[in-house]
Amino acid sequence: MAATEKTEFEIALNQAALAAEAALDRLLPNQNENRLHAAMRYAALGQGKRLRPFFVLESAKLSGVSLERAMPVAAALECIHCYSLVHDDLPAMDNDDLRRGLPTTHKKFDEATAILAGDALLTIAFEILADAGQPPALIGALAKAAGQAGMVGGQMLDIEAETKNFSSLEEISAMQSGKTGALFEFACIAGPMMAGQDMTALKTYAKNIGIAFQIADDILDVESTVADLGKATQKDKAKGKATFVDFLGLDGAKKHAKLLAEAAKAALEPHGESAIVLRQAADFIISRRK
Amino acid sequence: MAATEKTEFEIALNQAALAAEAALDRLLPNQNENRLHAAMRYAALGQGKRLRPFFVLESAKLSGVSLERAMPVAAALECIHCYSLVHDDLPAMDNDDLRRGLPTTHKKFDEATAILAGDALLTIAFEILADAGQPPALIGALAKAAGQAGMVGGQMLDIEAETKNFSSLEEISAMQSGKTGALFEFACIAGPMMAGQDMTALKTYAKNIGIAFQIADDILDVESTVADLGKATQKDKAKGKATFVDFLGLDGAKKHAKLLAEAAKAALEPHGESAIVLRQAADFIISRRK
Repeated sequence: MAATEKTEFEIALNQAALAAEAALDRLLPNQNENRLHAAMRYAALGQGKRLRPFFVLESAKLSGVSLERAMPVAAALECIHCYSLVHDDLPAMDNDDLRRGLPTTHKKFDEATAILAGDALLTIAFEILADAGQPPALIGALAKAAGQAGMVGGQMLDIEAETKNFSSLEEISAMQSGKTGALFEFACIAGPMMAGQDMTALKTYAKNIGIAFQIADDILDVESTVADLGKATQKDKAKGKATFVDFLGLDGAKKHAKLLAEAAKAALEPHGESAIVLRQAADFIISRRK
Repeated sequence: MAATEKTEFEIALNQAALAAEAALDRLLPNQNENRLHAAMRYAALGQGKRLRPFFVLESAKLSGVSLERAMPVAAALECIHCYSLVHDDLPAMDNDDLRRGLPTTHKKFDEATAILAGDALLTIAFEILADAGQPPALIGALAKAAGQAGMVGGQMLDIEAETKNFSSLEEISAMQSGKTGALFEFACIAGPMMAGQDMTALKTYAKNIGIAFQIADDILDVESTVADLGKATQKDKAKGKATFVDFLGLDGAKKHAKLLAEAAKAALEPHGESAIVLRQAADFIISRRK
């Protein structure tokens, strides 16, 4: 393949990123000299792979839901992802100074502003969904994915792991399934949920790529440099936190990630050829370099 | 009046507090040894006047909305109020060690847990509303009241006032209207909003008691001791933050609060005798001792 030829997945991811950026730019407030607005926009705009919006838009496409209807869901989900990064980076949490090669929000502004910008991004996600007239069932599904039984719960387990190490693959999987998996799953089932269709295939797909994504993250954390990732590396090791790599070994982790990606692709069987972009996405998840 | 005789307002507030406590106890997760659940419950249960749930339930009653339908709205709103206290108390924000006479959440647990418990309480508010099948319009109204144009925006202005003093009554009013006013207003209009009725009277009522509440707070901050309030006092003065008392003087502030309470009561005219509890509530707002 020539260097200029892109896969269907790469084209779709790029389009989703542009669409998400435009939607967030439009949906996030932007009053002149408003410090809170500036911090919200700093945390949410201009960066990120926009993987979660991509999955929302792709699952919507697969389910026959219009881009117009899916876009606010993609934007709301990205607001929640971005708020979680702002809060996770705080000194009391992961204490990170860099995110995607730039100062984290509390470094660029200050801690109080970062806490409030995170709170405001989380809150505006639900405002966006409500303003778009999304039904309570979808709003509730996002709240569940983001909250104590999902992302926030996973983050709590991750913080606790610093003092109380994971002693089994099951424990680390539970942490991951909350911290990363829940939002991925919401993204992938948003399409069939909006269309009122069966969600089984996409749910299985999401569960597999969710774990694969985290394993790939753990591998990157070991193999990459700060320059590669634009954020601190080997932090888990420094904090004595066990990762998938510790339990499976580097080769074992790579093999397991590959198996999960295959299982994810197999789950798309019922969707036939139209799911090619999501199949390629599963391969990307485990082969990405950042 | 004999010491045992209670006003209609006192009886209604007490009933609302009991009902809110029971609803929160039922709605907040409670897994054994789950640190996040413990922190959420510590922050939300067992304390507080439950003024916001009271206003939701009272405005619902006035609008002919059943207690069953109003209760999840009252509980969701209280979750948001409680999360805001947890985050406001953080070292990077107001740095308070005491709240209602007990250690603040980050003192009882730790900062990371307090940040996450706040995030989880904010998120579960929307889960509660969605699970109760509340319409997107009401969910959006709460998000707006709680977010960047409401409570979080007001808190940002309050934090900024530490370095950039309020120079006018208008500025301090804008801060208050976001920080305290927005949730009060949501509480008071929740009833007519659920019933699809005109909200004008209750909106005017809410705006007036919102400012009156904040002025009363500023007066209490000057006149009370730590033992009275169960939290640190005179903190605004220590931080060089201007309050309503600075602009109006102590007597002027008391007079202004009284005028606002009268305006609030006058706004209830269309509701006639059935609004007696809300009229008494306006008087309570400016006469409370904590």
